Amino acid sequence: MMSAITTRSTHACFGGTQGFYSHLSTSTGIEMRFAVFVPPQAQTHTVPAVYFLAGLTCTEETFAIKAGAQRLAAELGLMIVTCDTSPRGLNIPGDSESWDFGVGAGFYLDATQEPWATNYRMGTYVNEELPALIEENFSARKDRRGLFGHSMGGHGALVNALRNPGRWHSLSAFAPISNPCAVPWGEKAFSRYLGDDREAWKAWDASELMRNKKYPSSILIDQGLGDQFLEQQLAPESLEAAAELSGQALTLRRHEGYDHGYYFIQTFIADHLAHHAAVLNS
Amino acid sequence: MMSAITTRSTHACFGGTQGFYSHLSTSTGIEMRFAVFVPPQAQTHTVPAVYFLAGLTCTEETFAIKAGAQRLAAELGLMIVTCDTSPRGLNIPGDSESWDFGVGAGFYLDATQEPWATNYRMGTYVNEELPALIEENFSARKDRRGLFGHSMGGHGALVNALRNPGRWHSLSAFAPISNPCAVPWGEKAFSRYLGDDREAWKAWDASELMRNKKYPSSILIDQGLGDQFLEQQLAPESLEAAAELSGQALTLRRHEGYDHGYYFIQTFIADHLAHHAAVLNS
Repeated sequence: MMSAITTRSTHACFGGTQGFYSHLSTSTGIEMRFAVFVPPQAQTHTVPAVYFLAGLTCTEETFAIKAGAQRLAAELGLMIVTCDTSPRGLNIPGDSESWDFGVGAGFYLDATQEPWATNYRMGTYVNEELPALIEENFSARKDRRGLFGHSMGGHGALVNALRNPGRWHSLSAFAPISNPCAVPWGEKAFSRYLGDDREAWKAWDASELMRNKKYPSSILIDQGLGDQFLEQQLAPESLEAAAELSGQALTLRRHEGYDHGYYFIQTFIADHLAHHAAVLNS
Repeated sequence: MMSAITTRSTHACFGGTQGFYSHLSTSTGIEMRFAVFVPPQAQTHTVPAVYFLAGLTCTEETFAIKAGAQRLAAELGLMIVTCDTSPRGLNIPGDSESWDFGVGAGFYLDATQEPWATNYRMGTYVNEELPALIEENFSARKDRRGLFGHSMGGHGALVNALRNPGRWHSLSAFAPISNPCAVPWGEKAFSRYLGDDREAWKAWDASELMRNKKYPSSILIDQGLGDQFLEQQLAPESLEAAAELSGQALTLRRHEGYDHGYYFIQTFIADHLAHHAAVLNS
């Protein structure tokens, strides 16, 4: 049974509506916030929704405020859905000691280790609960969904679409954590959420997944070369190598001077939305 | 003599640079922060700068983060300059007791009453110090400047351009406080910054100024009809009446459903930048 949606605020925007909502999530067992930009086209027919997964410390608001996406989504007739980066308010011991683990850092996976396994189920939340909620309550097509994200959310987009290609029809990422098994952010999060068995980590690692399976449409990735996390945390070259192995169609663009933030994202957001629209509106 | 600029951060953005800076201000006697978007065109020649004045509680970051202006400014070849909404860090008794007076609420005027007269000189800061600083340190044209703003900053843009039409060649506003002498926000701020003589207030009131003088080019104003402050604080009808009296060319557009926030601003920002570019690039 679907939980009720609470409307926190709505704002007219480019002829559509940017709204902020919350609901009691069955996946995470706690109230979760999400945001939806409904483009003007949705007044007359259902439209494809693109889900954006944000990075460490962000919330459902970050992309809505900073990406400049609504102008283009209104032109293309795309709904944009954003969610939080973890459950909040649980006060699990250890969930707020660092910015790269726990609150604000759910890594869009289903934890298997206590004390995280009960609530840190962002994988199920993003793949199942949120799309069902959106498609029941908003004018979103049930047969077309896009997934993209940034940094930790780029990882989230890649792994969840690769794991569930039937659910996600288009895919892109900004500066994703491409090989979490091999970098400090990933090692810290996966060892706590998934335990010590590194084999189990591979099921949530984009480079590991891509080595063995192909996502059915081309993937777009943008990466700034002035990104302060590029060298230690992001490893796009691992994803490129995996794509070559499996024959995955991948456009990975490297941009001189751009950093890890939303000024980078807003610069290339138009290309990402066009990438999704090309698949989803077809 | 010009004070040195400290670079706080810079970010590649749409082929240009969004930068955040500070400097010791002679007008306000304290370190002030400002931000500049330098479009790609400025690599080869000087470009016109448009100065945006933000509303109550905002900072130099607000517009840079939320307005989605850089995409369009990069296309039009406009520099965008934003500044803070007051001096900060002075700790003058009473400067932080309310969100609509003192810190974050300088009203872009020169205070005449103590304890404000020494530092709360945002009028001089915006009209003189900031443009001189920008034109010395960035690739900005000295012969073309635009001014616009939102709410308290819309008031600031209107009064400062009307008072100094030779300095500001294009003018627009989002949901400006159009007749501060007659509304609670204005009465509170003006009585403290300018004293009890209501005649003196008129020199900083857009509707009062416009009754008696014409700004040399057409003014664009957008106003949402779902704006929570429209009825009590903004009074666009006073400005319309003044424009009719003086024969001022004014396009005041009212938009069903739009509120007072940046989702409203981002929806109409393209029209404002085009309005400025039409004058400034000519």
